[in-house]
Amino acid sequence: MKLLDIYAKMKSDLDVIEGQLARSVTTDHALLSDASTHLLKAGGKRIRPVFVLLSGKFGSYELSVLERIAVPLELIHMASLVHDDVIDNADTRRGQLTVKSKWDNRIAMYTGDYIYGKALAIVTELENPQIHQILSKAMVQMCIGEMEQIRDFFNTKQSVRNYLLRIRRKTALLIAISCQLGAIASGADRKAANLLYKFGYNVGMAFQISDDLLDLLGTEKQIGKPPGSDIRQGNITLPVLLALREPAIAEELQEQINQIQLSNGAGETKRALNLIRKSAGIGIAEKMAARYINKAIAALGDLPNIPARKNLTDIAHFIAKRSY
Amino acid sequence: MKLLDIYAKMKSDLDVIEGQLARSVTTDHALLSDASTHLLKAGGKRIRPVFVLLSGKFGSYELSVLERIAVPLELIHMASLVHDDVIDNADTRRGQLTVKSKWDNRIAMYTGDYIYGKALAIVTELENPQIHQILSKAMVQMCIGEMEQIRDFFNTKQSVRNYLLRIRRKTALLIAISCQLGAIASGADRKAANLLYKFGYNVGMAFQISDDLLDLLGTEKQIGKPPGSDIRQGNITLPVLLALREPAIAEELQEQINQIQLSNGAGETKRALNLIRKSAGIGIAEKMAARYINKAIAALGDLPNIPARKNLTDIAHFIAKRSY
Repeated sequence: MKLLDIYAKMKSDLDVIEGQLARSVTTDHALLSDASTHLLKAGGKRIRPVFVLLSGKFGSYELSVLERIAVPLELIHMASLVHDDVIDNADTRRGQLTVKSKWDNRIAMYTGDYIYGKALAIVTELENPQIHQILSKAMVQMCIGEMEQIRDFFNTKQSVRNYLLRIRRKTALLIAISCQLGAIASGADRKAANLLYKFGYNVGMAFQISDDLLDLLGTEKQIGKPPGSDIRQGNITLPVLLALREPAIAEELQEQINQIQLSNGAGETKRALNLIRKSAGIGIAEKMAARYINKAIAALGDLPNIPARKNLTDIAHFIAKRSY
Repeated sequence: MKLLDIYAKMKSDLDVIEGQLARSVTTDHALLSDASTHLLKAGGKRIRPVFVLLSGKFGSYELSVLERIAVPLELIHMASLVHDDVIDNADTRRGQLTVKSKWDNRIAMYTGDYIYGKALAIVTELENPQIHQILSKAMVQMCIGEMEQIRDFFNTKQSVRNYLLRIRRKTALLIAISCQLGAIASGADRKAANLLYKFGYNVGMAFQISDDLLDLLGTEKQIGKPPGSDIRQGNITLPVLLALREPAIAEELQEQINQIQLSNGAGETKRALNLIRKSAGIGIAEKMAARYINKAIAALGDLPNIPARKNLTDIAHFIAKRSY
């Protein structure tokens, strides 16, 4: 089944989630509502809610319960994006912090805090401490992932393992618990919840690797921002690390990255991008993403063969081929 | 009993809390540990843990349970301070964002997020969804309070009610739930928990009003920063609002505040401070703080007459007289 067909089949439930998302960030505080609603309208694939709902099919599917997992997980994802923007926003000002950007940053930070809080307030309506524990532990790991990303900016000596650990915390974990909590909340058995966690974790790893590939290979139109944003920001991703291991280009690529770092984000990335694109790193990273997808699909093998299992498989295949 | 004597009596339990606080922010991520530990060492009165522990005396006092309330509440307080600093830090640079300050801000933001997450991870170890609900709802309200403070910067037309609602969210609520959750976690009855909430709420209101008075009346040595920091930042506190209602000084004070606003934090506050100090606003604000303290102590009246009740009364009196 195509991705759009899966979404179409889930439309009425996803519409409920969408409505709850909108309501959850509406306060009597205009500024906060505006900032949150703006963010919400920016949309997204709502992949976490989709995984929550599909995982809920392996237990007793109750939308009124699952929405209290799906909405908080999407809110946590949104809040993490807002906090990323606090920094990015400042960056675009090239070290100059205008009153307006200062104001925006302040609002962005508290909007993020507020959305995190709302997520927790909604999930705690489910009187299941295990769910609260899993979620709060994941939030801690996500923060550590964000800090690791900062620590590792422009660190071209980091290991591939280091990269994988970072994206595990930054991305894969939240997708893993989307599946796991959907299963737990619907009363699926422990084995199913664990297999769905495994599925989500592996899909999440593939998802981030694909995202990092897209930033190097995509066009500005495809990715909504100029390619090479990661490298400009100092975020050294898997294909870059792999390219840096190729003797034929290592030295020149390192030199280009040094220049990008020295230019404080204003430098030209064209040469570096060309080197990476022609490197074997691209193909190896693609293979690694494919391997994670295969592991994800293998985890589904031990689950009952219900339509949701096929949907999850299809979504995993879609993520593997991702080129939007 | 003097405040120091109360702390001395509680020392061994507070030491346990202190140890847990230190452990809770220790990660294998050096940068994060350093930033959090630095913050922790800055100390503070640990008033929230003290209230948790004393409130726990109204039920079955179990330190191993109460520490999972006391530590998260202090962590949430700390995290909110870190996020305040994200902005203040940028301010001190007078609109110029150096690489170092940018780095610090980024770290401060994620350190705050991380500490919030840790607080939740610890409190969810107590398998009591009601506690998780109360805490997450309070966090949402605190964020709204922070946003309201930003919205109301330099708004001299705001009502006293507006100020009171803001400090309720910003300060009083967390102190109120420190008492309430201490009671709930120790299995005290609902009535006791509600009375302790009421005590904490009123103490919290008095605490913030006293804090705002101190920023106007204290010396730099007493408050650890130059007096008038609030007004420089645009935070219009109760005594200022009251002074602005006095016909004899209203116009000149408004003029001074306008100049402070136009100077973007660099202006002279001496004249404004003198006007406020001589105004009747000081006395009225002091009376309002005293009234909150009286309400707090009255709430204790219906609780069993155990030593903790006397301790809470003494702390409330101390806050009323606060001049450190």
